[in-house]
Amino acid sequence: MIRVAIIGASGYTGLDSIEIILRHPQARLTYLTALEEECGHAEMVFPRLKGRCDMEIEPLNFEKLAELADVALCCLPHKVSMSFVPRLLNTGVKVIDFSADYRLKDVVVYEKFYQEHTDPDNLAHAAYGLPELFRETIQGARLVANPGCFPTGAILAIAPLLKHGLIETSGIIVNALTGVSGGGKNPSHVFHYPNMNENALPYKVGSHRHMPEIEQIASEVAGKPVNLLFQPHVGPFDRGILSSIYCNPVEKVTQKELNELYRSFYEGQPFVQVLDTPPAVKNVARTNFCHVFPTIAKGKVVCFSTLDNLVKGASGQAIQNMNIVFGLDETMGLL
Amino acid sequence: MIRVAIIGASGYTGLDSIEIILRHPQARLTYLTALEEECGHAEMVFPRLKGRCDMEIEPLNFEKLAELADVALCCLPHKVSMSFVPRLLNTGVKVIDFSADYRLKDVVVYEKFYQEHTDPDNLAHAAYGLPELFRETIQGARLVANPGCFPTGAILAIAPLLKHGLIETSGIIVNALTGVSGGGKNPSHVFHYPNMNENALPYKVGSHRHMPEIEQIASEVAGKPVNLLFQPHVGPFDRGILSSIYCNPVEKVTQKELNELYRSFYEGQPFVQVLDTPPAVKNVARTNFCHVFPTIAKGKVVCFSTLDNLVKGASGQAIQNMNIVFGLDETMGLL
Amino acid sequence: MIRVAIIGASGYTGLDSIEIILRHPQARLTYLTALEEECGHAEMVFPRLKGRCDMEIEPLNFEKLAELADVALCCLPHKVSMSFVPRLLNTGVKVIDFSADYRLKDVVVYEKFYQEHTDPDNLAHAAYGLPELFRETIQGARLVANPGCFPTGAILAIAPLLKHGLIETSGIIVNALTGVSGGGKNPSHVFHYPNMNENALPYKVGSHRHMPEIEQIASEVAGKPVNLLFQPHVGPFDRGILSSIYCNPVEKVTQKELNELYRSFYEGQPFVQVLDTPPAVKNVARTNFCHVFPTIAKGKVVCFSTLDNLVKGASGQAIQNMNIVFGLDETMGLL
Amino acid sequence: MIRVAIIGASGYTGLDSIEIILRHPQARLTYLTALEEECGHAEMVFPRLKGRCDMEIEPLNFEKLAELADVALCCLPHKVSMSFVPRLLNTGVKVIDFSADYRLKDVVVYEKFYQEHTDPDNLAHAAYGLPELFRETIQGARLVANPGCFPTGAILAIAPLLKHGLIETSGIIVNALTGVSGGGKNPSHVFHYPNMNENALPYKVGSHRHMPEIEQIASEVAGKPVNLLFQPHVGPFDRGILSSIYCNPVEKVTQKELNELYRSFYEGQPFVQVLDTPPAVKNVARTNFCHVFPTIAKGKVVCFSTLDNLVKGASGQAIQNMNIVFGLDETMGLL
Repeated sequence: MIRVAIIGASGYTGLDSIEIILRHPQARLTYLTALEEECGHAEMVFPRLKGRCDMEIEPLNFEKLAELADVALCCLPHKVSMSFVPRLLNTGVKVIDFSADYRLKDVVVYEKFYQEHTDPDNLAHAAYGLPELFRETIQGARLVANPGCFPTGAILAIAPLLKHGLIETSGIIVNALTGVSGGGKNPSHVFHYPNMNENALPYKVGSHRHMPEIEQIASEVAGKPVNLLFQPHVGPFDRGILSSIYCNPVEKVTQKELNELYRSFYEGQPFVQVLDTPPAVKNVARTNFCHVFPTIAKGKVVCFSTLDNLVKGASGQAIQNMNIVFGLDETMGLL
Repeated sequence: MIRVAIIGASGYTGLDSIEIILRHPQARLTYLTALEEECGHAEMVFPRLKGRCDMEIEPLNFEKLAELADVALCCLPHKVSMSFVPRLLNTGVKVIDFSADYRLKDVVVYEKFYQEHTDPDNLAHAAYGLPELFRETIQGARLVANPGCFPTGAILAIAPLLKHGLIETSGIIVNALTGVSGGGKNPSHVFHYPNMNENALPYKVGSHRHMPEIEQIASEVAGKPVNLLFQPHVGPFDRGILSSIYCNPVEKVTQKELNELYRSFYEGQPFVQVLDTPPAVKNVARTNFCHVFPTIAKGKVVCFSTLDNLVKGASGQAIQNMNIVFGLDETMGLL
Repeated sequence: MIRVAIIGASGYTGLDSIEIILRHPQARLTYLTALEEECGHAEMVFPRLKGRCDMEIEPLNFEKLAELADVALCCLPHKVSMSFVPRLLNTGVKVIDFSADYRLKDVVVYEKFYQEHTDPDNLAHAAYGLPELFRETIQGARLVANPGCFPTGAILAIAPLLKHGLIETSGIIVNALTGVSGGGKNPSHVFHYPNMNENALPYKVGSHRHMPEIEQIASEVAGKPVNLLFQPHVGPFDRGILSSIYCNPVEKVTQKELNELYRSFYEGQPFVQVLDTPPAVKNVARTNFCHVFPTIAKGKVVCFSTLDNLVKGASGQAIQNMNIVFGLDETMGLL
Repeated sequence: MIRVAIIGASGYTGLDSIEIILRHPQARLTYLTALEEECGHAEMVFPRLKGRCDMEIEPLNFEKLAELADVALCCLPHKVSMSFVPRLLNTGVKVIDFSADYRLKDVVVYEKFYQEHTDPDNLAHAAYGLPELFRETIQGARLVANPGCFPTGAILAIAPLLKHGLIETSGIIVNALTGVSGGGKNPSHVFHYPNMNENALPYKVGSHRHMPEIEQIASEVAGKPVNLLFQPHVGPFDRGILSSIYCNPVEKVTQKELNELYRSFYEGQPFVQVLDTPPAVKNVARTNFCHVFPTIAKGKVVCFSTLDNLVKGASGQAIQNMNIVFGLDETMGLL
């Protein structure tokens, strides 16, 4: 039985992680922590846990962590995370980190989009936690950088094309639409219900921090630099990301070839499903699945993908990674 | 042409008032004010006014108000409002006040549910702005207390019964469901989109400030004290209030009698429509109409009503009152 | 390992039942059936099952059922259900029936609200599947009548009061608000997205078929006839029922007494949680929990409850019943 | 006073047209028609018209039309429309046609995406009703082909670039997200509330009928053939279209140049507003405005636009066209 701590348990990814672990047959929650002002009984912090989770969420104590847990799911935001992760690792636990702090291998890129990086040592050995592409690296990792929600959807949608050199590596457009939970739990004007309901809008034009993350992994898959434009939008729903990706084929490709390529590429990957028709956000909501649909339109290769930003885009993928790190069946607790 | 000032123009009722006046053939906006930190060009404060309202929202100056306006729609919250209204009236403008400060005739009741009342003099002569019941008083008023959104829906639903003594004056249950805009524009955890979406909940059990307001007006209509329980709930939509009111008939009454009573009572009232089937919030959204449907079920008289909390429940009714005060056709700008 | 068949698997309760059984550690799906025109691979009928349920949904064959299953979750609509249940039972499987056909013990009442009853024999021995009140009866049952969604929420909210004779047994008002999934999967004008979104409305005034069901069970709990008015409303969300119930206390009762009564009454009931504050639909969505909050307002006892109409109000409760019938831990697969 | 008939008044664009004309100071409704099975008093067909529109919706009679109206807003679907328009024109009324039947000048293209064209004569002289580009043609027209909702948003977003040759005329990606009302009033599985709520999906990949319409007008503006990929998506909201358009600049262009170009291009166009920040659907909902925001990201020119599909994308633009045809101020009834 894996003993799981959740660091930063008071947000949306903390709640989803708790709910998944509660159903996991080989893992149990042993320690929940949060900032002091967000602590309290789990049932008070999250009324939907009433009768399901008789635990306190308490301020983090590293000794207690060392004693109680085998793995820490670290749900802290970027910058905060890298100030905790070295000490988490020092306690001997494995760490699955939800933040961006250990995803970008190039510190210069990280510092351009985020801030100074204070833990380059751990960055060097962190595994990028996208199991469909990097399962082997994850298996032996002490620290897994859980991917961003947008990068997961974007990369899974086009990885087969990049791997086989079927599309040009520049000029790719990633147009994504996310539900509002992606913005976190803190109230704001833009996400105040009467403002966000019946609304839809683009944001962070040309500057979203997930763009270099997508480019880094896409480049790794392609074996050469990939340059793309990632444009996020937010719409009036809780969960889900719909990515619509427009690519220029290197040479003519048929629908049949795409189907075969994708089915072959994702064979044996339990959480990626290749569809024959366009995907829909609701079909993956509250699951760890990513649905992908590659097709051809007006001479472009167009790839769609959907996933739940809090599950395959965060907590579910983290637990998929945890399963891999601990040698369990990858799907345990996630079907 | 009536010259209209809007005091406290930066909230949801301010915006709805602006949009209605922009289409009003006999009124025009001449002055928009707000707290200093919420000022700016109207098109910046409300992007949906782009190209429609080339005016500044500026801090209130009473001399400027005196010079520019015939009437002030005062969209300030309670307590704040009564600190401004005496000075607004002193400039010579008529005032339609959106707050609760001039609605409760009994200062003791007001002070129990709100706070100390600092302007009892104006309270004494303020007209309660529910035109369907108090049109004559409104006509000559310098100060109109625009009714609360819940009271408007509740009272219009049962006034005919109370007036004709057909229901018991105690034991009435007013169960109401409002959209989220009723909570105003300030972000909060409960109204953060991912919390309020797909949610519905009761609030202020037994203690909502609109309860004494409903009781006061209901008592006035009935000619004797009315005692009722008002219970609000909030649901995941922008606009509208659905009231479901359960009453005990004094003696047996038929559906036919109810129909005739209501149609006769509301004859000639342009904004109250008596239906033969249950009403729906969406059919009155963004209109100044109130739909009412009285019926009988299991020995109770059950009355339903719907209205838009920001229109008939606030800005639209204010402008209906303005039309009456200035001797215009009551429906002007509101159909 | 319990072998589970789902009869009528192609609707919303079928899907929820499938998803729960997929995670159940002691049960597995062995047979899925539907009307011929709704058959097909489970992943085609429900794209959200892709990669999770490699089974065909096929027309019902009773011999196959006998061979493959220990229990049938019968998700058919009323009237249809009672034409199948006798034959289902004849195969030797246990049956958890989702329809209303075996809930109303009085055939006369059934025939008034539904139609002629064609299976009075099985009606006579069917257990009413509300475990919190009738666990013992359920344990030995061959046929369990799974309760209606509204009755579950209403009865759990007031059972302690009725049992202890604290409220009058007439004059009870049950005002309920349900999400749209309660209306089933068939498209209609009223539930067409642009009509139902941003809407809320009452329906079936004084005539909903769940009213006699609530009265029957409430009377059984109270030990004398209970007469109440049940009024349903529908609002713009997928899942959940919020019930607001207004009762007249027989004599004065305090909040403290209510708290103690409810906590004592529901002690050891895993799925009923007594709250100290008003409940919210979202806190029980996709769980098998019912949150109840009893309080006092203006001399009335007011009880609120929330549950998910498709889980505790249908599929979850059915599986809770299945667990009981087969002697498993009642919460298995449901936390 | 322009006498307005609405042909096919029973759908969403019919309702919006009615509501706009009801507030129009120089136009009044004189004749409402629909298919026989959708006829009835306007207040019955549309409960939100109660007390606002005391008219019958009746089967179309051409003689009655000739007698009663100066203009017909023809809200019929494509194919049906071209079987009525010749006879409408024969009565002497002006026609604003909402369908696609008179938009595509090339009959071959029309017949590829729709069906055989049965009225090429009127097609030849119909004006394309996008006033910002074709005001002069519209002024003298007897028949105006009101543009599609997607084409209006897409073309207004990029017309300045095409006109000035700043972007390449191939490789343009138009990624659009529409609210559900764009799908019309007829219930379907995909738009059944519990299916569409909390959902988002692409549809008609590479084959939407608005694609050739966008290409035709874009080519006319550019003065040479434009080839683009238009991909629609639908999201869980009633109204609005958000278009995100990705273009390759012919040579480097700056944000400042874009701002100046767009402001100059749309100067004096009341309904197109050029923004400095990304637009939002809610800011144009229920208005006749189109908000556009051109910018630069990763070497692409990215243009966003928002409009209300039922107003600027249908009924509002039709009435804007009507105003132009009859020599009224273009904004009358629309601010």
